[in-house]
Amino acid sequence: MSGPTTREEALALDAHDALAPLREQFSLPEGVIYLDGNSLGVLPRTTAARVQQVVTQEWGTGLITSWNKAGWMDLPLRVGDKIGRLVGAAAGELVVADSTSVNLFKVLSAALSISQADAPDRSVILSERSNFPTDLYIAEALARERGFELVLAEPDELPGLLGARTAVLMLTHVNYRSGRMHDMAALTRAAHAAGALTVWDLAHSAGAVPVDLHAANADFAVGCGYKYLNGGPGAPAFVWVHPRHVDRFWQPLAGWIGHAAPFEFTPGYRPAAGISRYLCGTPAVLSLAALECGVDTLLAAEPLGGMAALRQKSLALTRLFAAQVEATCPGLTLASPRDDAQRGSQVCFSHPEIAYAIVQALIARGVIGDFRAGEKSHPAGAVDILRFGFTPLVVRFVDAWDAAQHLQHVLQTEEWRRPEFNQKQAVT
Amino acid sequence: MSGPTTREEALALDAHDALAPLREQFSLPEGVIYLDGNSLGVLPRTTAARVQQVVTQEWGTGLITSWNKAGWMDLPLRVGDKIGRLVGAAAGELVVADSTSVNLFKVLSAALSISQADAPDRSVILSERSNFPTDLYIAEALARERGFELVLAEPDELPGLLGARTAVLMLTHVNYRSGRMHDMAALTRAAHAAGALTVWDLAHSAGAVPVDLHAANADFAVGCGYKYLNGGPGAPAFVWVHPRHVDRFWQPLAGWIGHAAPFEFTPGYRPAAGISRYLCGTPAVLSLAALECGVDTLLAAEPLGGMAALRQKSLALTRLFAAQVEATCPGLTLASPRDDAQRGSQVCFSHPEIAYAIVQALIARGVIGDFRAGEKSHPAGAVDILRFGFTPLVVRFVDAWDAAQHLQHVLQTEEWRRPEFNQKQAVT
Repeated sequence: MSGPTTREEALALDAHDALAPLREQFSLPEGVIYLDGNSLGVLPRTTAARVQQVVTQEWGTGLITSWNKAGWMDLPLRVGDKIGRLVGAAAGELVVADSTSVNLFKVLSAALSISQADAPDRSVILSERSNFPTDLYIAEALARERGFELVLAEPDELPGLLGARTAVLMLTHVNYRSGRMHDMAALTRAAHAAGALTVWDLAHSAGAVPVDLHAANADFAVGCGYKYLNGGPGAPAFVWVHPRHVDRFWQPLAGWIGHAAPFEFTPGYRPAAGISRYLCGTPAVLSLAALECGVDTLLAAEPLGGMAALRQKSLALTRLFAAQVEATCPGLTLASPRDDAQRGSQVCFSHPEIAYAIVQALIARGVIGDFRAGEKSHPAGAVDILRFGFTPLVVRFVDAWDAAQHLQHVLQTEEWRRPEFNQKQAVT
Repeated sequence: MSGPTTREEALALDAHDALAPLREQFSLPEGVIYLDGNSLGVLPRTTAARVQQVVTQEWGTGLITSWNKAGWMDLPLRVGDKIGRLVGAAAGELVVADSTSVNLFKVLSAALSISQADAPDRSVILSERSNFPTDLYIAEALARERGFELVLAEPDELPGLLGARTAVLMLTHVNYRSGRMHDMAALTRAAHAAGALTVWDLAHSAGAVPVDLHAANADFAVGCGYKYLNGGPGAPAFVWVHPRHVDRFWQPLAGWIGHAAPFEFTPGYRPAAGISRYLCGTPAVLSLAALECGVDTLLAAEPLGGMAALRQKSLALTRLFAAQVEATCPGLTLASPRDDAQRGSQVCFSHPEIAYAIVQALIARGVIGDFRAGEKSHPAGAVDILRFGFTPLVVRFVDAWDAAQHLQHVLQTEEWRRPEFNQKQAVT
């Protein structure tokens, strides 16, 4: 499928886009093309009122009685069930809790316990060198605690490294820098064939690309609430465990909300049956309510074809943007896969020197993408990256077109040279 | 000091109470006497607008740029510094993050690591049998992971059990059931004399009673944001580590926000200096903003004498209520210490059979306390409890008086016998 070659053709694609009305679900600032929903999703129109209701009515008036009367205790499973519909988990299999990092600690702990019980000779956690750092840090800490070795490799090397020593293959499904997407089913099959378990981080997948945890036969998964799920800054994360593993071990964050009977206040831990044992502390009610609004914006796409339809639009958007930028910005190198099957919902370009300044110049023009510094310690990730996320609920074809035009302008006019675009400040 | 003997005298105490205006900081439901701020604090008047600002302006309009421009990244330390003023921590020593359970896991892990390094023969975590269950569950899980033994005892037995095998004394400063308060300084001194470290849970202390972590020479502390700090349901918790320990070990929840340079995205973990290494995942911005409003309601007492003044009022309230109930409700047995020095900011009564029904009858009358089931596995905690928290920012002397009158009425008229008060439902 060839993309539009004029702005009018891009506008025509929007006019015929059955998913276009979904954008009306969001409150978006005027004059902004937001290509950073892969870092922080946009604000649903329902969120402010819902959070206000939780604060003033459920908390302010209902006070302690709202734990039961307003269903606060049910939020982790209720919102979890909704997210489950986006990632191929059955009802009751997925809960919302804590952060992605904390949840990764839980599932990797459980995976290592299972591996130690079933195959004590296996001592390697295998992951990708350019996996998101928090995944690597948590794995590094757990490997040290539990006497495992963390082995990092490039994506293409992973199948060849799976072997008799591999306990767990731990990967982020879609890479946060490059947008490269692993074949979850094939890698899980290869891991299982080698006798290893799989832990999948869906931070850049849930709400962005179709995921089917059961079809892929995955073992454990975690994911993020504030990216494509539009849950708000620092929204709680989620955790899923395949039913074949869920009751086998405690995870070590054995907090009271994961107890079989938390309100009996017994001194000995007895884990809840099923995924509830992956809960730990008291549910973060305000954040859970906001996250539910975000997840609902994705479920609204179900009558329109759901994640499969959103995926088709996302691919069309990223193809359009990548093609336009490649055609008009010779200084930039595409750093995301060209192959649709290997590309998540983002497009990245690298530039050896001025990536940061270009991103700043674009932000000044109202085109918000982000910059990811090159990771100097290994060749594949050494180059600075301009990163553009295309959340198909919000981004229009004309946005992709215009963003490419802005990028071309910043480079052609050397607008990026302005001093204010060259003062570095941390961004997430 | 003798308390009021008539309702008019209680009203007169309120009229002369210099702290009385602090109540105006809160939005309280009409006709409710709320004695459950030790479970879920009340709603500050500023919270709804502040959360709305975060949602609609900082998130909705500022989007990703708010991590820097709105100071989101600074929230864990900024709110932490404010809480630090309530518990005797210096600026930069305390952070807000995760839940109490998760933070307890962090500090107990660190304490065990330090103990193992300095005194490898010590193998016991000593705690109180009726400590809050999540503390015991986390300790149980960590003891199992790390090869320690969890020993539980009654409060009076603790000093005698400290010895050459004790690695860590882990206690909740004010017991969640009885309201009994440990002498933090004396027990810390005894623990240190025995060569052990101390971990203090301030869930029922922060904002309720004066705490001075440095004066007590404590080693580690955690605490809760949604009780006396009025942070809202499931508000994030806090963690403090004495500067002499803070840089000695990683805690195993080595997430990216605790990294020395999270935005360099390097694959190897390098912990931040100081307390920031006790951060893990992305800060929960909405919840942190709400918590800050809650903490500010306590800091507003600083010009009026701060926690010392609040403590005097709290003691007067609990004395008044305990005396009235003991005088008028012979069926109830005081289950909190009579000695001011040993009592937190709550009063409990036990009843062997009808505690639950009494609490329900009181709630129907607009007097909200809570019920805590007896812990059947040991004699000291075997009895069901009626629990009444007195948060001195909000509760008036006349409220304490009226609550005692309601309680007397429920018992004298046997109102508790109504069927609807005898159907059990979980409450937190």
